[in-house]
Amino acid sequence: MEAETAAKRARESEVAAAADGAGEQAGISAVIPGWFSEISPMWPGEAHSLKVEKVLFQGKSDYQDVLVFQSSTYGKVLVLDGVIQVTERDECAYQEMITHLPLCSIKDPKKVLVIGGGDGGVLREVSRHSSVEQIDICEIDKMVVDVSKQFFPHLALGFEDPRVSLHIGDGVAFLKNGRRLPEECSRGHLRCSDSRFLRSSRSCSGAVREAVLPVFKGSVNYAWTTVPTYPSGVIGFMLCSTEGPSVDFQHPVFSIEEDEYSTKSKGQLKFYNSEFHTASFCLPSFARRVIEAKAN
Amino acid sequence: MEAETAAKRARESEVAAAADGAGEQAGISAVIPGWFSEISPMWPGEAHSLKVEKVLFQGKSDYQDVLVFQSSTYGKVLVLDGVIQVTERDECAYQEMITHLPLCSIKDPKKVLVIGGGDGGVLREVSRHSSVEQIDICEIDKMVVDVSKQFFPHLALGFEDPRVSLHIGDGVAFLKNGRRLPEECSRGHLRCSDSRFLRSSRSCSGAVREAVLPVFKGSVNYAWTTVPTYPSGVIGFMLCSTEGPSVDFQHPVFSIEEDEYSTKSKGQLKFYNSEFHTASFCLPSFARRVIEAKAN
Repeated sequence: MEAETAAKRARESEVAAAADGAGEQAGISAVIPGWFSEISPMWPGEAHSLKVEKVLFQGKSDYQDVLVFQSSTYGKVLVLDGVIQVTERDECAYQEMITHLPLCSIKDPKKVLVIGGGDGGVLREVSRHSSVEQIDICEIDKMVVDVSKQFFPHLALGFEDPRVSLHIGDGVAFLKNGRRLPEECSRGHLRCSDSRFLRSSRSCSGAVREAVLPVFKGSVNYAWTTVPTYPSGVIGFMLCSTEGPSVDFQHPVFSIEEDEYSTKSKGQLKFYNSEFHTASFCLPSFARRVIEAKAN
Repeated sequence: MEAETAAKRARESEVAAAADGAGEQAGISAVIPGWFSEISPMWPGEAHSLKVEKVLFQGKSDYQDVLVFQSSTYGKVLVLDGVIQVTERDECAYQEMITHLPLCSIKDPKKVLVIGGGDGGVLREVSRHSSVEQIDICEIDKMVVDVSKQFFPHLALGFEDPRVSLHIGDGVAFLKNGRRLPEECSRGHLRCSDSRFLRSSRSCSGAVREAVLPVFKGSVNYAWTTVPTYPSGVIGFMLCSTEGPSVDFQHPVFSIEEDEYSTKSKGQLKFYNSEFHTASFCLPSFARRVIEAKAN
């Protein structure tokens, strides 16, 4: 699995100061004093805001601004360059879906590569799979790992698995430098992309699918899930496989929620289940038409 | 079908003024000057905001505050007592799903009662069904109907269907006053409720299901869909039938998207399709556990 979780959502966001321009301090948005507001040119004309109880960490790494705050109703929140990455309350939706959608679609995955995902949440979920022997993670920003270990121990516990090897560096360089691709890469790749239902079709998955097709010559599929604190409450996933035996991503071959090892090691799954897996590939009519048009 | 669309989302919302308390004018939230912010005790600690281009209407009916504004990216927006009801951009998700989930689950529906839904969007969707002979709508607030006719003609066109009879009044009184229930009421009832995935279980559908069970002794089901401008991007529907032949709501018996009459009268569906219908009943694990616990 190649999960580009670091690119979770585009980082080109910028906080557009409101008319009064007041109240900008401690990394908190100017638009609602005492609240964090996610505003971006990617989703213009709207903002989602969380009430801030306390700023817990604020730093500037070599790559981005890193912010952790205690929200009043979503628990602790990790923000990179103004974009919410995880909240304690709804992180399960993202982490479980991006992990188990690909891993439950192939039989006995053994080696997994995660690109990005420095908070550790995906590692925690990968660790539920007893067949997995080796988990490599390549995260460019060490500060993300350190901050997660300090403030999000229930995510960072993913690093504690003895099968995990952490590589700090650029994911593309990691692959280009002759590191052998995990064998799973020849079977099931996963690429995550932000998809916004009910916005313009250009921001739908059609464009992403078009870009992905020349690279992955096997199955190319689109699934989605709800994550309340992401813009529009939705995030989409591209599920792709390279040449070789085709992968039927929509119908899982392994039921992780019935696996004793999974439950024993990490407790019950909160979000993912096999039925929801299959349903997550069903799309509203307008989105289906966009994807079908691009495919033809 | 009894669709309580007027109760779309609870009206007990109140705009919590921010620290500075400035900027409250023309019904626009105080918290972001020039923006409308939906803030409610129902979903504390978060706010969703839309940038306002122009306020088009502001009134106070006998029942509620009515606001229409032109947003910068979601088209025109209808707000009742501070709660977004519809935006031009994403209204299709709500209207199509709340209508076709029940009507496609039973064979040849003939009489339909809509309680609430004064914007006309549900009527527009009901009108796609050629089998329907009579459509009654009971809306308590005439101002909602008038405002929709003025500002949302693509919703209010639902009133133009000759099968529609509009009754201005209280829905409960309408039923109590001896009005004969449409025959569909004995087969498929629909009740809409707001459900917020990933919030506390008390706000999940379990409580609603518990309240509904003593009334509807047939099938009681829960489905959901994404609507970007509703809090958390999700809304849930209770689909219930009374005693009699059981209704398998999850598997539609009629494919509205393949129906020529539907397309000819109202154009292609934007959101609903049969596959998405079935998928909308699949729930994340935590929600499934809540519902199963309440059922036992």
